[in-house]
Amino acid sequence: MSGILIKDAYALIDGTTDRHSIYITDDKISGIDKEPAGFKQDTMIDGSSFLVIPGLINAHTHSYMAPLRNIADDMPFMDWLLKGVNPVEDKMTGKDAYYGAMLAIIEMIMCGTTTFNDMQMHIHQTTKAVKESGMRAVISRGLVGSSYDRNDVRIKEALEEMEDGKDCDRLSFMLGPHAPYSCGPDYLRCVADLAKEKGLGIHIHLAESQTEIDNLKKEHNCTAIEYAQKAGCFDVPAIAAHCIRVTDSDIEIMKEHNVSVVTNPASNMKLGNGFAPVPKFLEAGLNVAIGTDGAASNNSLNMFHEISLLALIHKGVALDPVCIGAEECLKIATENGAKALGLEGVTGKIKEGYKADLALLNLDTPSMIPQNNLISSLAYSANGSEVDTVIIDGRIVMQDREIKTIDTEKVFFEAKKIV
Amino acid sequence: MSGILIKDAYALIDGTTDRHSIYITDDKISGIDKEPAGFKQDTMIDGSSFLVIPGLINAHTHSYMAPLRNIADDMPFMDWLLKGVNPVEDKMTGKDAYYGAMLAIIEMIMCGTTTFNDMQMHIHQTTKAVKESGMRAVISRGLVGSSYDRNDVRIKEALEEMEDGKDCDRLSFMLGPHAPYSCGPDYLRCVADLAKEKGLGIHIHLAESQTEIDNLKKEHNCTAIEYAQKAGCFDVPAIAAHCIRVTDSDIEIMKEHNVSVVTNPASNMKLGNGFAPVPKFLEAGLNVAIGTDGAASNNSLNMFHEISLLALIHKGVALDPVCIGAEECLKIATENGAKALGLEGVTGKIKEGYKADLALLNLDTPSMIPQNNLISSLAYSANGSEVDTVIIDGRIVMQDREIKTIDTEKVFFEAKKIV
Repeated sequence: MSGILIKDAYALIDGTTDRHSIYITDDKISGIDKEPAGFKQDTMIDGSSFLVIPGLINAHTHSYMAPLRNIADDMPFMDWLLKGVNPVEDKMTGKDAYYGAMLAIIEMIMCGTTTFNDMQMHIHQTTKAVKESGMRAVISRGLVGSSYDRNDVRIKEALEEMEDGKDCDRLSFMLGPHAPYSCGPDYLRCVADLAKEKGLGIHIHLAESQTEIDNLKKEHNCTAIEYAQKAGCFDVPAIAAHCIRVTDSDIEIMKEHNVSVVTNPASNMKLGNGFAPVPKFLEAGLNVAIGTDGAASNNSLNMFHEISLLALIHKGVALDPVCIGAEECLKIATENGAKALGLEGVTGKIKEGYKADLALLNLDTPSMIPQNNLISSLAYSANGSEVDTVIIDGRIVMQDREIKTIDTEKVFFEAKKIV
Repeated sequence: MSGILIKDAYALIDGTTDRHSIYITDDKISGIDKEPAGFKQDTMIDGSSFLVIPGLINAHTHSYMAPLRNIADDMPFMDWLLKGVNPVEDKMTGKDAYYGAMLAIIEMIMCGTTTFNDMQMHIHQTTKAVKESGMRAVISRGLVGSSYDRNDVRIKEALEEMEDGKDCDRLSFMLGPHAPYSCGPDYLRCVADLAKEKGLGIHIHLAESQTEIDNLKKEHNCTAIEYAQKAGCFDVPAIAAHCIRVTDSDIEIMKEHNVSVVTNPASNMKLGNGFAPVPKFLEAGLNVAIGTDGAASNNSLNMFHEISLLALIHKGVALDPVCIGAEECLKIATENGAKALGLEGVTGKIKEGYKADLALLNLDTPSMIPQNNLISSLAYSANGSEVDTVIIDGRIVMQDREIKTIDTEKVFFEAKKIV
C-alpha cells in the first residue's frame, strides 16, 4: 500500500477552487482534508503554489496519428483525408503506431490529460503504449465495411484486442464503426448487434461534414444521426464525435438514447466543417464531452487549447458572451468525458473513492497571475504548459514536467523517423 | 561592440524554414550564413534543436490590465466594461500600472513577443517598464473627450509622455483616441489635427460591437469607419483595432487610406462581438496585423494562442479550409505588425540590417515533433511554451525560459496584490 499527500493546494472541486489537502492511497483518492484511517504517507507534495484539477479526458482522438502532425494542412476535407492522410497512414507499421501512440501520450500527459478515448487501426500497439506509460484509455479498433459479416477481419481484430486489456484496469474497450460514409447499413447493424451481445459501447464519427449529410440524404433519405440510430448504434452506450450537421430532431433522438456527443472544435474549424451547435446540445440536456481529434487534423493534442476554443467560439457564433461558461467547459472536459466513456464514478472528479487521476498546475507562471478567478484561468488563460505534475491511477507519471514512465528521448527519436 | 552567433538553426525566412546561421552585431542582424567583416563573437547559441522566428508583434493590447485578468468573464460587453473592468481600473495607481505592464511584458516575452502596441492610462509607467525590461513598444495614452480642446489633460499627458522615449530607441509613440463611443467628433478632429501637425500615427478601437454601429448610425448617420475618416483619423498612419462590424464600403475607405487593421480573435469572441471579416480584408489588400487585446478581455497575452485562433476560426466561419493559410497568419503576426506600427524595415523579419528581435523555439517538445512542416507547427501546434530564448534589440532577454532583465518574483508578488 502506498500513500501520497498533496498538502494544502487549490483544488477544483464541484465548481469551487478552495484550498484542500488530498490523500491518495494506492490508485484512489482516499480522503479530502481528512486523513483516512491507516494512511501511510510515502510522498508529500507541497501544494502551496499548485492548483489541482481532475485529469482531463480527451474523449475523441486517434493517438497513432501523432507522427502525421502537420503533413496535410490548409486543404479541403476530402483531399486532406484521401490525398494527405490516408496514403501515409496506409504505410504505417505496427511499430510506427506504437511510437505514434507513445508520442501522443507524452503530449497528452504534459498538458494534463489522464484518459483518452482512441479510435485506431493497429491492434496491440496502443494497448501496449497505454500499459507501459501508465495512461488510462478506452480503445476502439476502427471498423469499416459494407455487409453483415461477423467474420470481418476488423471485427475479429477488435475482439482479439480486448484480450489485451484483461490484465490492466486502466484499459477498456468499445466497438468503433468509423462513420456513415465508411460503414454500410448492414455492416453498421452487424457491429451494433455485436455491441449489444457483448455489452460494449459504440464510438463513431457522425455528421462531420455537409458532404456526408448530402450523400446520406441522397442514398438513404436520412440524416447521419438517423442512419446510426436505425442501425441500432444508439441501443448501446454511444459516443458520437463531431456532430456538426445535426437537426433539432437529431438532437431529440440523441437525447432519447442518451448518446454522448464529443465536440472537436479545432479539427472542425481547420477542415472547414464549421461549428457544432454545442449550446443547443447543452440546452437539450445532452452529455457533451470534448476531444482533440487526431494530430493530423488539429494539430495538437492539448486539451487546454481545446477548452479555450470551446469557451470562445460559441460566444462568437451566437454573438452571446454568456451562452457557455468557463465552469461548464471544465465540466465538459472532465466529468462529462468520464460519463461518455463509461467511467462515471471512476474518474473525472476530485472525490473520495474516485481514481487518483489528477493534474497539478503551477500557479507561479505569468498567465496564472493574479489568481482573481481560477476557473476562468483554466478556461481562458492556461495553455497547458502550467501542468507540472500528473498522477494517474495513484502513480506519479510526471513531476516537474519530467515524464517518469516513458523514455521520451527514444520516442521522439523514433517518431521523427516515421513520415 | 558585441556579437551573438546562432549557429545552424531552423529559421523562418520569407516563408521557408531551412537551416541558417544568424549573426548579430549590437542591436542588429549583421549577417545570415555569412560572417560579417570584423564580427567579434561573444556568445554562441547552438541552434541544432531551435527554430528561430522573428519576434512576434502584439499589435493591440493594454499591458497595464494584466492584473485584471479573469476579474470579469462570461458577461455582456457593456457590463464587462462598465461594471467589471472600469471600477477596478479607476482605482489603479501608477505603481499598479507599472507592475501590470511588467507582468504583461514577462508573459509576452515568455511566449515570443518582442514588440507590443499599447493603449494605456498611466503615463510614465509603461515607458518605465519597457525601458527596464528591454522590450520594444509603441505607446499611446488613451484619449477620451468631447470638444475640440488642445489643452485637454489627456492630450497634454500624451505629449508629455513622449518626452520619456527620447533616450530609448525601443520606444515610439502614437496618439490613442479610444473609440467612437468615447470620443466626440470634435475631440476626434482635434486629435487627428494634432497627429498631422506632429507627424504621429493614430491607434483607435473601431467597429467593435453592433451597439457601437447602431448608435453611430442613429446619432451621426455613419459607420464607425466613416466616423473616424471624417474626423481626419485616416489622414495619418492609422491602426484600427477590432473592425468586426464593417461594410464593403468601409473596407474600401480603409484601403484607400492605408489603414492597418488589427484583429483580436479571442477578445472579440469572448465578449460576444463575433468574427472580423479577415479573409475579406486580405482579399482587399489591407495590411492586417493581430493583437491579444488586454488580459481582461482575452485573458492571456499569448500570441501563439491568437495565431492559432486566426488560422482556425475563419475556416469555420467560411466553411472553407483554404480561406487563410498558416504562412499568412505568421506574416500577420510579424511583418504586417511591424508595418502597422511604423516599424517596417526595422523589425518583423529575419533579414540583414533589421533589429535582432528573435524568438528561439525548442523543437524537442512533443507538440513540435515530428518536423513535417514547421510553418504549420507554428500556426497550429505551438502553444508558446516552446519559446526557450528571446533576443530583443540584440540583447538576450530570456534564455532557457529564464527572464534575464526583470525580477519576476518581485513582479509576481506585487501583481497579486493589485486587485
